[in-house]
Amino acid sequence: MAEYVKSEEIFKEFKEHSISEFFRKNSQMLGYSGKTRSMTTIIHEYITNSLDACEEAGILPEIDVTIKLIEEGKYSISVKDNGPGIPSKLVGKVFATVLAGTKFHRYVQQRGQQGIGASGCTLFSKITTGKPITIRSSNEKESYECNVDLEIKTNKPLITNMKKIEEMTRGTEVFGEFGELKYEKSDHGVEEYIKRTVLSNPHATIKLNDPDGKEIVFLRAVNEMPKKPKEIKPHPLGVDTNDLIEFAHRSHEKTVSDFLIESFSRVSQGKIAEIKAVAPDILFDIEPSKLQWSDAEKLVKVFKQIKWMAPELDSLSTIGEKQIEIAMKNILNPKFQSVVERKPKVFRGGIPFVVEAGISYGGDSGKKSNEVDKDGNVIEAEGNVLRFANKVPLLFDGSNCAITEAVKGIQWKRYGIGRFDEEPVSVLINVSSVYVPYSGVGKQAIAKEDDIIEEIKLAVMDCGRILQRYLSGVKNMQLQETRYKTIMRYIKQLSNDLSEITETDQKEIEASLKTLIEKRYSKLFGQNDNKPDEEIENKSEEEQEEKLED
Amino acid sequence: MAEYVKSEEIFKEFKEHSISEFFRKNSQMLGYSGKTRSMTTIIHEYITNSLDACEEAGILPEIDVTIKLIEEGKYSISVKDNGPGIPSKLVGKVFATVLAGTKFHRYVQQRGQQGIGASGCTLFSKITTGKPITIRSSNEKESYECNVDLEIKTNKPLITNMKKIEEMTRGTEVFGEFGELKYEKSDHGVEEYIKRTVLSNPHATIKLNDPDGKEIVFLRAVNEMPKKPKEIKPHPLGVDTNDLIEFAHRSHEKTVSDFLIESFSRVSQGKIAEIKAVAPDILFDIEPSKLQWSDAEKLVKVFKQIKWMAPELDSLSTIGEKQIEIAMKNILNPKFQSVVERKPKVFRGGIPFVVEAGISYGGDSGKKSNEVDKDGNVIEAEGNVLRFANKVPLLFDGSNCAITEAVKGIQWKRYGIGRFDEEPVSVLINVSSVYVPYSGVGKQAIAKEDDIIEEIKLAVMDCGRILQRYLSGVKNMQLQETRYKTIMRYIKQLSNDLSEITETDQKEIEASLKTLIEKRYSKLFGQNDNKPDEEIENKSEEEQEEKLED
Repeated sequence: MAEYVKSEEIFKEFKEHSISEFFRKNSQMLGYSGKTRSMTTIIHEYITNSLDACEEAGILPEIDVTIKLIEEGKYSISVKDNGPGIPSKLVGKVFATVLAGTKFHRYVQQRGQQGIGASGCTLFSKITTGKPITIRSSNEKESYECNVDLEIKTNKPLITNMKKIEEMTRGTEVFGEFGELKYEKSDHGVEEYIKRTVLSNPHATIKLNDPDGKEIVFLRAVNEMPKKPKEIKPHPLGVDTNDLIEFAHRSHEKTVSDFLIESFSRVSQGKIAEIKAVAPDILFDIEPSKLQWSDAEKLVKVFKQIKWMAPELDSLSTIGEKQIEIAMKNILNPKFQSVVERKPKVFRGGIPFVVEAGISYGGDSGKKSNEVDKDGNVIEAEGNVLRFANKVPLLFDGSNCAITEAVKGIQWKRYGIGRFDEEPVSVLINVSSVYVPYSGVGKQAIAKEDDIIEEIKLAVMDCGRILQRYLSGVKNMQLQETRYKTIMRYIKQLSNDLSEITETDQKEIEASLKTLIEKRYSKLFGQNDNKPDEEIENKSEEEQEEKLED
Repeated sequence: MAEYVKSEEIFKEFKEHSISEFFRKNSQMLGYSGKTRSMTTIIHEYITNSLDACEEAGILPEIDVTIKLIEEGKYSISVKDNGPGIPSKLVGKVFATVLAGTKFHRYVQQRGQQGIGASGCTLFSKITTGKPITIRSSNEKESYECNVDLEIKTNKPLITNMKKIEEMTRGTEVFGEFGELKYEKSDHGVEEYIKRTVLSNPHATIKLNDPDGKEIVFLRAVNEMPKKPKEIKPHPLGVDTNDLIEFAHRSHEKTVSDFLIESFSRVSQGKIAEIKAVAPDILFDIEPSKLQWSDAEKLVKVFKQIKWMAPELDSLSTIGEKQIEIAMKNILNPKFQSVVERKPKVFRGGIPFVVEAGISYGGDSGKKSNEVDKDGNVIEAEGNVLRFANKVPLLFDGSNCAITEAVKGIQWKRYGIGRFDEEPVSVLINVSSVYVPYSGVGKQAIAKEDDIIEEIKLAVMDCGRILQRYLSGVKNMQLQETRYKTIMRYIKQLSNDLSEITETDQKEIEASLKTLIEKRYSKLFGQNDNKPDEEIENKSEEEQEEKLED
């Protein structure tokens, strides 16, 4: 080996970086890729925070979004809510420290999880316009206004022009200028995002003042707060060794036994006895801060060997079957829809989650399409998936999402849908959990965990079975209607012929034939006392082929 | 509004978190999702670092990977290289501080970019086994061994058992124990990962000792180092206002003009004059640390209005056409292949990148399949995409990647491929850049930037045109062969009939007919002096239909 560059030389530029520097360089990971998506990302982050704050405070949310064009690519955005307000001493970190927040470490279902969203917006404002954002906030103790800047190198806030204000009512307003944006009316745009947010949060009123100066109001459909998700203790089946060690070392209980009972749900004295019986060599009576990895590892293993009550399920807040039904009816105006809320399940052994699903067919269901199928027929609409996680619409990265994967994996033919891509069908899925495993920092897709995909599939299949009954009914109806019309068309001729043969009055025969046929096809006339179609004649060849193809 | 929860109450749990805490909770974002993927992620991170270190030092890499099963789900992994070694004073941060490294801030093409990979492995070891990792390293000054632990709360290293060692030759060995893993032979497994790494890094030798105790050696195919990518200055077209401000405020030059010439590529006194002519009100003579946002913003706009030489292209290090050809031949043993290296292009206005593409057909190309097509025929292989970024194989998140998007967007029929999913075809794409815009922290997919997708498509189309000529040749050959056999079958009968009619010797006629036909179909006999097939007879209906369908 000839001369090479020495280690010292290579490492002389070794440096540490802040998380802000990282996201400043990789803003696409936060959802800032493409001008339309960046616009929706900002609105998404602010609305999500407002909804969480209102929900936690028990306030019916009213949110005003105002977007104004400054010059091409540059917009001002303001989002104002009637939430509980933010204490002035924390406002800097809330808006200008990435990875700071109230939610990260808590075991409670919320839309936000990470403490990245709002400070990501401040970062994006800074790198595209160089300007700080402006906050006005009023809480039970104070009302103030200030500018918040983010120092990228240190990930620290810089607050300027802090002043008290008088006239403000409770809530928070954030105002910023942003570059590299575009306001677009599309499936990925702001209006669609808000429409879907209201669909999954029918207790919220959101007003959008768009750049054309148009005001679009999405009024709340219900006047009640959704059930508040309870903060719960983790379930023993959802904990790993490292969690257990961390919790133990933070605990002030006197013994490992007490710590387990205190820190986890479903752990009782009885369960401790069961655990002891399986693994008697674990040191249960030492201080939890002295728990060793090997004992913690054993405990996690034993947890998986004994029977537990299911996790506490009131940790989960869903949209609700009835709300989904109303919302889908309003927005999609379908010919048919079915909705299910499944029972809560767990993934990764012990993290509770629940899936809600709705299918709508016909009307405005599906996505408009101008495609042509392989036989040259125009496809008017293609199947569409409306994805939600903790009631937040997910508009991007669909191909990377457990929901899409599950829906595409359904054998749609079983449910009367020939090709999902060629029919007017919408599938709505909402996954709720205290911890949604997003596949990326931008939180637009749910990681493809097997347990979650499986459960989504089951939910869709539940809806699908109901849809199938409807669609096969429709098909039967259509078939019968055709037959009825055909028979009626020939009834005159037939009654003439019969009249000649039987020497009976033609009118009489025509009348009794009509009665007979109408009785047979009574379904078409809104009566339902008839035998199934199969008894009248054999199935058409066409129909049989369809069954076979299935 | 009734009572609500006060702001003070809600924010009493407000906390800041370290980047390690964030990834500890969201390890799936680093690639730790699923046991097989987690295994590949670890190997990927260590090999990537070794290759980068060797490349920077100018050393032909020799890497030994050893994986041993400890108990179900738990493995020890060691990766040893002959690189330049790591200074002991930095070893802690290299392996146990997320976002620390030599690469983040530099404008040079490397596999790693973020300073997350190796510390992510330490984190994963800690949360799945509670153990530190062990490093042995030898550089030009010292040889040592130590344990490195990562303190999650602070994102700081904890070094224990540091000791000098004697016997070690230059290089670094990392050893760790990891849980939640599985060693699997699959498209997403370690062996496949290493195979593809060697394909794109033919100057590297990598040995794999797998958990069965089998040693698999991938020997280097070339004994030369690849061209070392040059560290370049950013191009004015690739810079945004925030970059410009940051660079300016760090600069020690005396004037803004000097700073621009010094900090950016392609900026000369002449260009400064051009910029001044367009925007005379910019303050060019002040100290760069006093450059204001408004002036910086103007500068960025002017940059886009004047003509520039293209970015320096020797910043890019490719695999090389010839290397790709050799590698594809070795691994896929195809019936046909074509490879192109495109000229470098830029995305986001000024970041240089280059695309290499190869298509192989037949042999072991494509992915084995057991599917059946719509006519009931068994599909033996389906199209396969081998993705690389900066010569690193990307095995996961394909659906989220610009490469997949581009390849799926190709109208394959134009290139003689009926359906990409049903033919034995492999497409290899390598995208090289000083900055690859990954869509996630786990760096397994390239963000869907339009410029990049477009350039990949053009590269595939270049290869496709060559493939199309080959495949249409094959089809013609098959068609001709069929016709030839048919004619030969009837030649005896025909010559008998002709003999009777013309009263000529049958043998003579048969012989001259044979000569005539053999001449017409001479291609089949390895001669090439014939007129195109079309002259002999009209195209078969079948063939015409195929053209129409196209």
